[in-house]
Amino acid sequence: MNLRRPYLLFLGDARDELAAKTAQGIAYWRPEWCVGQLRLPGCKADLKLPDMTLEQAAAAGVKTMIVGVANRGGVIDAAWVPLLLQALELGLDLASGLHRRLTDIPEVAATAAKLGRALHDVRHPTRDFEVGTGARRAGKRLLTVGTDCSIGKMYTALALEREMRRRGLKADFRATGQTGIFIAGEGVSIDAVVADFISGAVEFLSPDNDPDHWDLIEGQGSLFHASYAGVSLGLLHGAQADALVMCHEPTRRHMRGLPHAPLPDLKACIALNESLARLTNPAARCIGIAINTSALDTIAASRVLKETSDRLGLPAVDPVRDGVGPLVDALP
Amino acid sequence: MNLRRPYLLFLGDARDELAAKTAQGIAYWRPEWCVGQLRLPGCKADLKLPDMTLEQAAAAGVKTMIVGVANRGGVIDAAWVPLLLQALELGLDLASGLHRRLTDIPEVAATAAKLGRALHDVRHPTRDFEVGTGARRAGKRLLTVGTDCSIGKMYTALALEREMRRRGLKADFRATGQTGIFIAGEGVSIDAVVADFISGAVEFLSPDNDPDHWDLIEGQGSLFHASYAGVSLGLLHGAQADALVMCHEPTRRHMRGLPHAPLPDLKACIALNESLARLTNPAARCIGIAINTSALDTIAASRVLKETSDRLGLPAVDPVRDGVGPLVDALP
Repeated sequence: MNLRRPYLLFLGDARDELAAKTAQGIAYWRPEWCVGQLRLPGCKADLKLPDMTLEQAAAAGVKTMIVGVANRGGVIDAAWVPLLLQALELGLDLASGLHRRLTDIPEVAATAAKLGRALHDVRHPTRDFEVGTGARRAGKRLLTVGTDCSIGKMYTALALEREMRRRGLKADFRATGQTGIFIAGEGVSIDAVVADFISGAVEFLSPDNDPDHWDLIEGQGSLFHASYAGVSLGLLHGAQADALVMCHEPTRRHMRGLPHAPLPDLKACIALNESLARLTNPAARCIGIAINTSALDTIAASRVLKETSDRLGLPAVDPVRDGVGPLVDALP
Repeated sequence: MNLRRPYLLFLGDARDELAAKTAQGIAYWRPEWCVGQLRLPGCKADLKLPDMTLEQAAAAGVKTMIVGVANRGGVIDAAWVPLLLQALELGLDLASGLHRRLTDIPEVAATAAKLGRALHDVRHPTRDFEVGTGARRAGKRLLTVGTDCSIGKMYTALALEREMRRRGLKADFRATGQTGIFIAGEGVSIDAVVADFISGAVEFLSPDNDPDHWDLIEGQGSLFHASYAGVSLGLLHGAQADALVMCHEPTRRHMRGLPHAPLPDLKACIALNESLARLTNPAARCIGIAINTSALDTIAASRVLKETSDRLGLPAVDPVRDGVGPLVDALP
């Protein structure tokens, strides 16, 4: 995959900021790649980028329009198709992280083929993988894991990359989900891989490297999430992580999407991740906790961080409020 | 999927019995569905079924020829294609459990379409699944789990079905691999499902049922196998098993395909399976152990079974030597 830059971010008629979270992630982490946003009437999301028409974007040198909005069911709205076709006519490639493929829309596929434009469905792996082996690889690896889905695993891994590079360390973010792939420009959407190849795909994503190089691998799901734990375990084994960072949201009342399922105890979640990670890396250990305190005020947030850190004997930070310096300090 | 019966089992030029293990499983468990075998020159496998030409098979009323041989890489040998085409011409459907699809061989696909024959690639799910939820379902479930791959999980589940039906209990084998699917006539090849849907596919495979009905679900892989543990965990969560049976082979020196990886301790393997299964069924527990003692003589086999049973406080049987009566006795 090779996305031509810069990007125009298409937000459609996103009914809230959350619906545009893919575009939001790209604009936050890669502002230098994002020239503008394209919003339809009724769009409630705003990335504070210049609003552009397709003609303006093409004139400004945009090379790829990214469908950065999540519809219910991951479909591509039929009403968007004329706009997608116009983008192709104006010289842009298209990219989408949705479940429904751009290449499965006949008019879009035909127009792209006719004009020689690229269509990137980053949610769908375009290559085959080998079965994982668990054999040791050179280089160091950190995996962000979590008590639940959508809890800050991508943000934490990217914040670690930024801080480690700032300190002159060799570090690369490794994307395992669609938003991360747009930000990194490459990666594997691990939940879309055929089940037999989960750990193998992660071994491909994070190959041998320099002994002092860190791969910062984006985690997915949770070992305690009844929908996705298989993905999380294959990722844990394939990552062969030296260091784990546990991500947590202290006000969440139940597992995302499963109202009947309580969140796991933080300590038990760390212990299980460490124990299972040791199948492929006996030195694996949790080096700290990243807590999303966005639902708390400053005082409550500080209290939660201190209480968690004291109880577990590990650094606890909110990457958004405080950065991840203490986690980098704790790397083995 | 609806395979027309009876079957002709195609063994190709299988170089040993193991290469024909899919056909062997079908012939062993469903002899009444198997009219004959078709072997090419050099074939070393023999199911003790009548050897038949395609013409003889068609005359004997065969409806489907099953490619029951595993080549290295799961491919379909180009030399087999004329035979496959002839089978279609003679009125037979084709079925395969190989990784490479029958439908991807252009001449085979075209001929089948022209003549109205069915092609069944049972390794590849033909439907979409929902994401799993972990919500409780009615009926009872048993899952066979293991210390490693290829260790007797399918055999044990089928032996349990046979014994339970003999006792007048309501029991259905639920297939999760290609051989099991041929034997059951239906099922889901769980390692070929997209990773996000592993547990959801198992929830589909084993839906609500009568309160006194048992689904006997075929396990896959092992939580301790670095290649496939993600599949095993999604299967464990989706199965929502009341009862687990641990399958083991006491003479195996390393995990299958991974010479660097030792087998897990049996007790630790049981404890981890029970602990993780309780995410979706708090009552889950291991009710016994199925030990494949085929590499041992009678005296050594008896000693291993007794020693294991005494040490773990659970019934331990070799399903092939002794049947699974004590496991059925131990059902909750």
